[in-house]
Amino acid sequence: MGTNRFEAFSDGVIAILITIMVLEMKVPHGETIEALKPIIPVFLSYVLSFVYLGIYWSNHHHMVHACQKVTGPMLWANLHLLFWLSLVPFATGWMGENHFAAMPSALYGVVLLMAAIAYWILQQLIIASQGPDSLLKKAVGGDWKGKASPAVYAVAIPLAFWSQWVSLGLYVLVALVWLVPDRRIEHVLVGDET
Amino acid sequence: MGTNRFEAFSDGVIAILITIMVLEMKVPHGETIEALKPIIPVFLSYVLSFVYLGIYWSNHHHMVHACQKVTGPMLWANLHLLFWLSLVPFATGWMGENHFAAMPSALYGVVLLMAAIAYWILQQLIIASQGPDSLLKKAVGGDWKGKASPAVYAVAIPLAFWSQWVSLGLYVLVALVWLVPDRRIEHVLVGDET
Amino acid sequence: MGTNRFEAFSDGVIAILITIMVLEMKVPHGETIEALKPIIPVFLSYVLSFVYLGIYWSNHHHMVHACQKVTGPMLWANLHLLFWLSLVPFATGWMGENHFAAMPSALYGVVLLMAAIAYWILQQLIIASQGPDSLLKKAVGGDWKGKASPAVYAVAIPLAFWSQWVSLGLYVLVALVWLVPDRRIEHVLVGDET
Amino acid sequence: MGTNRFEAFSDGVIAILITIMVLEMKVPHGETIEALKPIIPVFLSYVLSFVYLGIYWSNHHHMVHACQKVTGPMLWANLHLLFWLSLVPFATGWMGENHFAAMPSALYGVVLLMAAIAYWILQQLIIASQGPDSLLKKAVGGDWKGKASPAVYAVAIPLAFWSQWVSLGLYVLVALVWLVPDRRIEHVLVGDET
Repeated sequence: MGTNRFEAFSDGVIAILITIMVLEMKVPHGETIEALKPIIPVFLSYVLSFVYLGIYWSNHHHMVHACQKVTGPMLWANLHLLFWLSLVPFATGWMGENHFAAMPSALYGVVLLMAAIAYWILQQLIIASQGPDSLLKKAVGGDWKGKASPAVYAVAIPLAFWSQWVSLGLYVLVALVWLVPDRRIEHVLVGDET
Repeated sequence: MGTNRFEAFSDGVIAILITIMVLEMKVPHGETIEALKPIIPVFLSYVLSFVYLGIYWSNHHHMVHACQKVTGPMLWANLHLLFWLSLVPFATGWMGENHFAAMPSALYGVVLLMAAIAYWILQQLIIASQGPDSLLKKAVGGDWKGKASPAVYAVAIPLAFWSQWVSLGLYVLVALVWLVPDRRIEHVLVGDET
Repeated sequence: MGTNRFEAFSDGVIAILITIMVLEMKVPHGETIEALKPIIPVFLSYVLSFVYLGIYWSNHHHMVHACQKVTGPMLWANLHLLFWLSLVPFATGWMGENHFAAMPSALYGVVLLMAAIAYWILQQLIIASQGPDSLLKKAVGGDWKGKASPAVYAVAIPLAFWSQWVSLGLYVLVALVWLVPDRRIEHVLVGDET
Repeated sequence: MGTNRFEAFSDGVIAILITIMVLEMKVPHGETIEALKPIIPVFLSYVLSFVYLGIYWSNHHHMVHACQKVTGPMLWANLHLLFWLSLVPFATGWMGENHFAAMPSALYGVVLLMAAIAYWILQQLIIASQGPDSLLKKAVGGDWKGKASPAVYAVAIPLAFWSQWVSLGLYVLVALVWLVPDRRIEHVLVGDET
């Protein structure tokens, strides 16, 4: 099985997720600027999730690019990843509508953590299938981002019950770290040393 | 007519279905963990349907892969399959919101049964179009999974009025049986004997 | 501009339309079979619209297949067609929720009529771009289906105020006529005479 | 990274956006023609946004066509554009449901302005990546449309508080200017002088 349909299906699901999140932002009834106020936290959480899904789409793209053949387990590891990503709109909406309350902020972190673990599993399956000379293994190198992110989420989740703003700050921090262009895979693919 | 656009359209519909099911999981109003409680059955039914749609996507992919040419009847048999799959989010939502009550659990089985029959019709059409040396026929072999699944659903539907938990157990069982990697088609495609 | 992205975008929109129509079928609150009763007309109108969108998808596919190059006007004629198709879920929902009342049944016909006209415009643009030896022109031949359908809709719309069942019968009739395999384009494409 | 998946993802998001806007047009409860009256402004704003998203899809297509390689910054500039486009259904719904009140009409302009700026950034990134002989630079030429549109939006936004009809007239005007077939890129691509 080639990677084409695999990619197309993943892209489709992520494109739909990133778009239906907007549906959680209900059109307010008033016509004044005040009517928009209660939507601000929903909007901010939407922005954060949009960035996260954008990061997943971009990284997923690079990872699949470094993979030649899709096996059955990869297919299910991918569906597992998409499952957790599909909960992002729900977690985003709950967090936004409750103005970043402790419990929803913690749950948001749980969804991010599970998605990060699912991504890591998929990555390991692809690396294992490529053998000792794995292109992807060379590309991700020490993979400190992939290792640090779940650790940060795991810390941020319980912290939410002490101060959710610290947790949210950590979620934003992880997103920013990933936003910094990650040329590792690109470099290896074009022949540079990491 | 090639299989490309046929595949892309089917993928698109399944990707959308698997994603919009989450919309049935309404964001709760409270911010406590208790607010999530009434959503648990909705969530569990969502997980089951996610797995079912994942199975259909994966099997559909392999089946179409073993098919070279799409005829008019295949096109409509495929739309027929997509029609029953499109009712999965509705049946899932009804079952989840009523905490797996008897009637919704039975209806869920009816949708699964009709989808299984629609899938079988599409498979037969492809096999028939390929003549006696059908690659797909060799690939599915005795097709005991394809034959047993509708039979199990047919038993599970009336059982729901006696105990819906038995029916649900059967639905989960069938899903698990399909989840076990089914290398039949892959084997034939790479030249192994079944 | 090739036809690939043109096709993919049209497929995407039709796949989304065919799927979001199910969202109009709200999950009922009761758990008994009676709770499903008020949904029956919504379900029936959903089935009719599903078939119509399936027909449009299938015919659109064949038409674009007979077209080599997409021009600017074709692109907008296509968006015009997609616009009217995008109103199908709304018209379907309004008709279904009002149990096929006269006015919604007439509006449903108006949407079908406008979509048929938009389809005809797109077809004429493609034929015109292909010159006197147009493959598509030969393929559609006298195009009696394409000419008769809008005429039937135009008759069915005012009839809805006398008896909506006659109008609905006519909508179903047109759908059935199109469902009969239309091998015209396929024949010409493989070299047969029409 | 080639432009294929880049294009497919953008198309997917725009196709979903253009379609889910219809969901904002809630099915009315009455069955008379009067029941449709309050929907008329929602419908009109839907038509305007449909045309705008159609223009963005068409121009995006031509722009990406003139681009051979997608870099990391382009990818994020594209997600930035899709972000603002994803707010179009929200802004459309708010404007339509409040019958084109001043504040929602101004916000609609803000979303159009931000999308136009995001589009311009993406265009500049592609041009910069192509060096002095940029095909896209030659294609867009003086780019008066791309420069004038944000300026008109910037004027229309504050004007909404004086008369929203003037603002809306300006939004419609810009859409009409873009609807006029823009053969600039096509011409350059086939070798004509601009």
